Amino acid sequence: MNAALVTSVRSMQEAVSEVRSSGRRIALVPTMGALHEGHLALIRKAASVADWVVTSVFVNPTQFGPGEDYERYPRDVQEDTRRALGAGSHVVFAPEPKEMYPEGYRTFVMPGAAADTLEGAIRPDHFRGVATVVAKLFNITMPHVAVFGQKDIQQAFIVRCLVRDLNMSVEILVEPTVREPDGLAMSSRNRYLSPDERSRAACLSRALKTAQALLQAGERSAAALRRAIEHELQKGAPTAIDYVAIVDPESFHAVDPVGPRGAVIALAARFGTTRLIDNAIIVPTPHEGNF
Amino acid sequence: MNAALVTSVRSMQEAVSEVRSSGRRIALVPTMGALHEGHLALIRKAASVADWVVTSVFVNPTQFGPGEDYERYPRDVQEDTRRALGAGSHVVFAPEPKEMYPEGYRTFVMPGAAADTLEGAIRPDHFRGVATVVAKLFNITMPHVAVFGQKDIQQAFIVRCLVRDLNMSVEILVEPTVREPDGLAMSSRNRYLSPDERSRAACLSRALKTAQALLQAGERSAAALRRAIEHELQKGAPTAIDYVAIVDPESFHAVDPVGPRGAVIALAARFGTTRLIDNAIIVPTPHEGNF
Repeated sequence: MNAALVTSVRSMQEAVSEVRSSGRRIALVPTMGALHEGHLALIRKAASVADWVVTSVFVNPTQFGPGEDYERYPRDVQEDTRRALGAGSHVVFAPEPKEMYPEGYRTFVMPGAAADTLEGAIRPDHFRGVATVVAKLFNITMPHVAVFGQKDIQQAFIVRCLVRDLNMSVEILVEPTVREPDGLAMSSRNRYLSPDERSRAACLSRALKTAQALLQAGERSAAALRRAIEHELQKGAPTAIDYVAIVDPESFHAVDPVGPRGAVIALAARFGTTRLIDNAIIVPTPHEGNF
Repeated sequence: MNAALVTSVRSMQEAVSEVRSSGRRIALVPTMGALHEGHLALIRKAASVADWVVTSVFVNPTQFGPGEDYERYPRDVQEDTRRALGAGSHVVFAPEPKEMYPEGYRTFVMPGAAADTLEGAIRPDHFRGVATVVAKLFNITMPHVAVFGQKDIQQAFIVRCLVRDLNMSVEILVEPTVREPDGLAMSSRNRYLSPDERSRAACLSRALKTAQALLQAGERSAAALRRAIEHELQKGAPTAIDYVAIVDPESFHAVDPVGPRGAVIALAARFGTTRLIDNAIIVPTPHEGNF
């Protein structure tokens, strides 16, 4: 199994160069490890569209702020490697922080204004870290396609902008959020929740369902949708609601009223010390849904 | 000749993809056009180390500040194409600004602290624009090697940092400055000089020669070298001296005294409304020299 676990940038680049020159199609699934069913769905998707799948496992320090959970974020590279290979990954790239950010590191990718709202407003520099590490991972693994989860929808939006703006030749796929039976979006941070918090946290996905139902019943007012969402969230008694955002799916700017192409509802709330996010793309006409 | 002039990003990427898959080695020479003998030397170098040479001709708006010479910077793509092909380039990539920065463009590459000194102190955001356009050009043309001129030595330093930090698989070559018979470094901006200014501007290279001679005669004090350089510059009666910098070649931090690995002497001065830069890497022991 260890041949499938690569920790140095140079070894990864050499392996990628060999695969590229053999004409095989490469897919990258960037993760911070602690792989759950949501990540495995991304890896399976990657394996279905490429010949060679790299799963990166890297808890990226530059996307964590002071006082966030960088130190306690769960790490188990051996178990992650086992799960990734089981889901169809050919190799796991798990570098140490100093391998990615050696002494004298200085260059950052700035994603622009969309990085300053929602998650970016709560977590300054978060998307600067995301854009930088994604650019690095793309350059190291040279994927034809990269697969991201819709769970981090603002991240996916920023990665699409990054790829378009910097003319990177990578196709970006965004896959639906995988959920627990009660609707809670899978997240490596769910393990921080106490049993009581865990049960209350299902209010996030219920609030999204409520918004979708209201929109399809004819409600177009973002203010009215927000009130209904907040009412539903309060039933779970969150410690705090960081934001309830109703934004355009193409621009991530706030919309009111919601137009024919629908809206992204993005939520962030805290249960005890644990911060959870969730989102849905809601549309005025009935569809398959994503929650 | 027009088949060798490419103006769209997509066409360039398609051509590059074909060349790449045929196993040929690609070199990029990024320029802002107005090609002179200095640029042609870079193109000849590129042709000697690669199978296929792309010369980019793009007056990059994001590296010019308000009040700088973006509007009046000389442009003649047909003549540049003729010269580039004559020197061994296989294709010229000359996109319009809106092709490189379309509506909604938002992502920038920030080169870190080294971008805030010398040229960066005088021209805020200059190296942000340089790093961004170089990253874009590398992603579009996917070169194995890129050739830069030592004339813009801080730019070359920042590009090396960019490539290292973002893990880009591009080898960076930096070629010596090409000079007029009186020592003036070739520059597209020399054409702005009046005959009198043109003759006075030779003081830049004379000042560099003076510093090299003093260092080899045993002078190690950066302060003493700076006094001698300023004295030599004043003989050319510059309108202003922007900076006389004596920095470490590896870190671009100021050095005093100059150690065994020598120093970069970087100069910027104005003659009338024209701003010129020049530099030399000076070393304590005699060598071939670069001015």
